[in-house]
Amino acid sequence: MSTPPGRRLVHETWGDHAALLARHEGGRDGSVGLVTPQVIDVATPRTPLQLESGATLPHVAVAYEAYGELDASGRNALLVCHALTGSAHAAGRHEANDVPGWWDPLIGPGKALDTRRHFVVCSNVLGGCYGTTGPTSLDPTSGHPYGPDFPRFTIRDMVAVQRRLQAALGVRSWRAVIGGSMGGMQALEWAVTHPDDVQALVAIGIGARHSAWAIGLNEVARRAIMADPQWHGGRYSLERQPETGLGLARAIAMLSYRSFDSLEAKFGRERSVVDDDALSSSFEIASYLAYQGVKLVRRFDANTYIGLTRAMDEHDLAAGRGRLEDVLAGVPARALVMGIPSDVLYPEVEQRRLVEHLPRARYERLISPHGHDGFLIEYLQLAAHLRRFLTELES
Amino acid sequence: MSTPPGRRLVHETWGDHAALLARHEGGRDGSVGLVTPQVIDVATPRTPLQLESGATLPHVAVAYEAYGELDASGRNALLVCHALTGSAHAAGRHEANDVPGWWDPLIGPGKALDTRRHFVVCSNVLGGCYGTTGPTSLDPTSGHPYGPDFPRFTIRDMVAVQRRLQAALGVRSWRAVIGGSMGGMQALEWAVTHPDDVQALVAIGIGARHSAWAIGLNEVARRAIMADPQWHGGRYSLERQPETGLGLARAIAMLSYRSFDSLEAKFGRERSVVDDDALSSSFEIASYLAYQGVKLVRRFDANTYIGLTRAMDEHDLAAGRGRLEDVLAGVPARALVMGIPSDVLYPEVEQRRLVEHLPRARYERLISPHGHDGFLIEYLQLAAHLRRFLTELES
Repeated sequence: MSTPPGRRLVHETWGDHAALLARHEGGRDGSVGLVTPQVIDVATPRTPLQLESGATLPHVAVAYEAYGELDASGRNALLVCHALTGSAHAAGRHEANDVPGWWDPLIGPGKALDTRRHFVVCSNVLGGCYGTTGPTSLDPTSGHPYGPDFPRFTIRDMVAVQRRLQAALGVRSWRAVIGGSMGGMQALEWAVTHPDDVQALVAIGIGARHSAWAIGLNEVARRAIMADPQWHGGRYSLERQPETGLGLARAIAMLSYRSFDSLEAKFGRERSVVDDDALSSSFEIASYLAYQGVKLVRRFDANTYIGLTRAMDEHDLAAGRGRLEDVLAGVPARALVMGIPSDVLYPEVEQRRLVEHLPRARYERLISPHGHDGFLIEYLQLAAHLRRFLTELES
Repeated sequence: MSTPPGRRLVHETWGDHAALLARHEGGRDGSVGLVTPQVIDVATPRTPLQLESGATLPHVAVAYEAYGELDASGRNALLVCHALTGSAHAAGRHEANDVPGWWDPLIGPGKALDTRRHFVVCSNVLGGCYGTTGPTSLDPTSGHPYGPDFPRFTIRDMVAVQRRLQAALGVRSWRAVIGGSMGGMQALEWAVTHPDDVQALVAIGIGARHSAWAIGLNEVARRAIMADPQWHGGRYSLERQPETGLGLARAIAMLSYRSFDSLEAKFGRERSVVDDDALSSSFEIASYLAYQGVKLVRRFDANTYIGLTRAMDEHDLAAGRGRLEDVLAGVPARALVMGIPSDVLYPEVEQRRLVEHLPRARYERLISPHGHDGFLIEYLQLAAHLRRFLTELES
């Protein structure tokens, strides 16, 4: 097989922009090192959490990580919000394994989110499966995992839980709430819901609400899960979840997270060396998509996937608040909005609309061939934009 | 619910460009009227068809329709090639039902493919399920439908079958071989395989071979079918095929056939009035995708879907022929290549590459918000470009 021009370069840097960043920023930066995830209760039977749906959760635990120190003012905190399948593990390493946090190149002493000056918090969202109460948690009434009986929850409910975490941590206000994709939804929602406590927001690769296109992609992903004979209406055992369906859902989503150009440069028409009966063709792209599915199935839960994608689809920053333009115009926070020209899932038109109406917003493009996933890849550019924005906030 | 600007217009014209064309072209055009599908044998035990794979088919029937008259020279014929789920029914109406042919606005007396001057032929491809031998046909050795035992077939095999049809019809050479999507693959393949018998080709919304992106989309669609418990390795009864999987495959494909903008204008965040348990959300886009699936399941076969998408993925115009650039440079036919700027499945870069290397090619853009499906919607533009191209050929 011939190697198309550009393949080698892309291979070397595919997902390895973190290494580039480390070389680029040299000795200035450090890791936050070993981190220990924390869990605290933010709702108890005496302080239950009422959800937007009206349902009540008698107990909510939140898993979070925090890096750096909160200063005496309580106002040097940054809230980092994760995306669909993310967790509270944004930086550093756990003792149990060597997997760095999902934004590790950006968070640490001397890094863009500088833990020498900021208290950086990241928590697993409500409804997640990484330690915060969600479908895999025990339902105290039944003693079994909630599964499909976990109540419908929303992006606003996620923010309500983070709000309780904020109080528990003694954070007076957030210097910035920061996130990409579903994390960006939370950042925008924070700024609208709690305008006095959010000095700034950073939203990357996201809009004010899901398009028909984004909903359609989530819909086929959910249907893939629900068509799996192991789905059982969500009443599977956690050891025997609908793996085929969840893997297929991930494969569909992965296509939308990347781009025509990046997949072409990386895989083209190369054949896989792996002979896998689960695949319907021998192309390397097929093998890659299957592998991405298997990886997710090992670390994620199908009910959670369905609940989180529904929360994203249903979310509308303007719902119950009037016209979207007016809602955005009323946001006092400074905003850094970033879009990725190759993002087919949340195209730039969505970020430009945010910037058009947010009164104190700046727009920056992440130039990347990698599509939506650019916010987890283009660390050099992310670092530069975040550094500049946070510096301006402090001046 | 408010109606976003532009929604009404798109509703009116969604899929109704044929009516626009009829109004635009006024009384000049006519329908080919009632047509009767024909079936002829192009391979028999005495004249079997050897496929590219080496397998042999002892019997191949071809379903086709023809409109207009072949002239004495045998050189006024146009071959119209259909796309993935198409059939030989390109124009007119059948007695049994009133569904017009899939390119009816373009084929007829006075229309762009003018049946007063051209002999227009359209045949169902090898491996199809609309009358030409394929997975749903009886295997003469077993007496049962081939199902998953139908041999692997390719775009080149489809052309070999059409070549036999050409001989049977007495067509000396094709004035043009014309197609969009998979039909465009056949048009290009015809021009390369039989340079002396193809005066011109028209290829719309297609490239010389599938990208990783296109393969990836087909892969997840096939996996959706194969994950259906009714799949049974393809050994389902034709009355009980993997409907859920095939419907899901279609829903995935439909997203890639349309575009962000067209789905947004048509559906946005509207809710469906239909309450359907098979859906995972109440948005209209979810209902639309499910409906598209149901419609396909009623008229198409899962083994056929898998066989045809594999043929598309495996096809490479240059395979076994040297460098693609040289293969294209050796095509003597005049070529009209059309691309659709909003096509995310076969982006314009693929058509531009064809035009760059085909020595006698012209490029035209179909301006459409509708993405890949534009070649089945934008009849006004298609008619104008086809009319001009065919006129030039005759002069």
